[in-house]
Amino acid sequence: MTRPVSALTRSSRHELHPVLLAAADAAQRTYLHARAAHSRAELEAVIGIGADGTPTMYIDDLVETAILEVSAAHGVNVLSEEAGFIDHGSALTLVIDPLDGSANAAAGVPLACFSAALAEENHFTQALTRWLDGNRQWAAAHGTTVGPEPLRTTGRSDLSGAALSLLRPQTANRSAWDRLSRQAGRVRVLSCSTLESALVLTGAVDAFADPGGDVHRLVDLAAAVVLADVAGGCVLDAHDRPIELDLDLTHRWSGIVAATSELAHAVQAQIAG
Amino acid sequence: MTRPVSALTRSSRHELHPVLLAAADAAQRTYLHARAAHSRAELEAVIGIGADGTPTMYIDDLVETAILEVSAAHGVNVLSEEAGFIDHGSALTLVIDPLDGSANAAAGVPLACFSAALAEENHFTQALTRWLDGNRQWAAAHGTTVGPEPLRTTGRSDLSGAALSLLRPQTANRSAWDRLSRQAGRVRVLSCSTLESALVLTGAVDAFADPGGDVHRLVDLAAAVVLADVAGGCVLDAHDRPIELDLDLTHRWSGIVAATSELAHAVQAQIAG
Repeated sequence: MTRPVSALTRSSRHELHPVLLAAADAAQRTYLHARAAHSRAELEAVIGIGADGTPTMYIDDLVETAILEVSAAHGVNVLSEEAGFIDHGSALTLVIDPLDGSANAAAGVPLACFSAALAEENHFTQALTRWLDGNRQWAAAHGTTVGPEPLRTTGRSDLSGAALSLLRPQTANRSAWDRLSRQAGRVRVLSCSTLESALVLTGAVDAFADPGGDVHRLVDLAAAVVLADVAGGCVLDAHDRPIELDLDLTHRWSGIVAATSELAHAVQAQIAG
Repeated sequence: MTRPVSALTRSSRHELHPVLLAAADAAQRTYLHARAAHSRAELEAVIGIGADGTPTMYIDDLVETAILEVSAAHGVNVLSEEAGFIDHGSALTLVIDPLDGSANAAAGVPLACFSAALAEENHFTQALTRWLDGNRQWAAAHGTTVGPEPLRTTGRSDLSGAALSLLRPQTANRSAWDRLSRQAGRVRVLSCSTLESALVLTGAVDAFADPGGDVHRLVDLAAAVVLADVAGGCVLDAHDRPIELDLDLTHRWSGIVAATSELAHAVQAQIAG
């Protein structure tokens, strides 16, 4: 029922490397078809372990396969969640989360995204996150917003009363989760990191965090790094590890995406305890 | 960018009272226009206190006003969040949440719904919940699903490992929230009760609950009562108060919407402590 949104941003397409839009279109087409053609049990069946060390669902594999087919034609290197690093000898590396929010996607919770960032040499310069269930996407290239969705945070610096999005509470993050949720004015748990990051960077939410659980992979955070630069936001790791191109997808971060550097550091301080 | 979905279900329109579709179309049109035409600050400005005793935002008022205009032509009584009970001397009463997820709607988190149930004399017989940000709606009339979205729960009875949606943690529900989230396999907080109910009743989530905070009004739960009857789900109040037509919108419930009666009672037991 939802069509790929690239038609909406045709006037700005030239600002993004075409591989970003081609990959997003392939992801969205495949996702929508998979949701229509397969049962939940089929979509969430685990078919292996990806390069990131986590289980690969059938729906993850369908979407990634479609993306790799179209991106191969563009000759860029690809670092993707399940397949790992595919070296085409290019100076450009596309870092992709083919289907962020896989559990939502397989179950039928309409919160799943394609998200990718393009690194030139080792520096992220372009990014596109597309919400696959609705006609919205967020993109930036070389410090400029691309497309109709403005990127600007709320500018909030105070954690007390802030609207937070958090990874779901689990054993490894429970105490930090409790500290953050008690200070927040509102907490959401959407189970889709790249969407939650985009909501911070459009000013819908003040901050998003993995509260110290070390769940985030580079593919969950790379687009936010580029979009935050345009939006005036801040992306940190809870333990101050740099968020930069790294070809080992088993590495983990506890990402914090916030409206301001002050708010990001306030969240970081609560995670430290 | 998103158009009202009634065209998608034209073949089934005759099964729903036309006031439900007219009201949903008015809500969606007004919501999408308001999001495009106004800033977040304008949309979330509090302009008064509604009949339900909670603050009315400007966006709530815009959407409800549009709904009341179209529903007046149908001659049914209306019970709506801000306006309260409007008596047209009809045997039919439309119980409406014009804009569920107002905080999401004003901020720009794409999780807001129109939701309504129609009571014949005092019995709810028809309902329609429409997700205003995407082309999906869930409807039933006289024990039958209306439209393309199937209504069927996961059938899960075991709370341990279940996928739960919960109202956000607050002081009044914190201990029950902690008990439930520790038993759950996955927790989401979407801040849109009627959407979260619909996700239970389509089998995307196992259960949704207000963990004893007495936050739910009749308008948050009425559609779920009708949809659950078709989906094989169960709608309970945590304190066993009946969920039935009640013209006093200051009354509150702690709603539980679950895949099965067993799961609903397991959630209820955790809320009781």
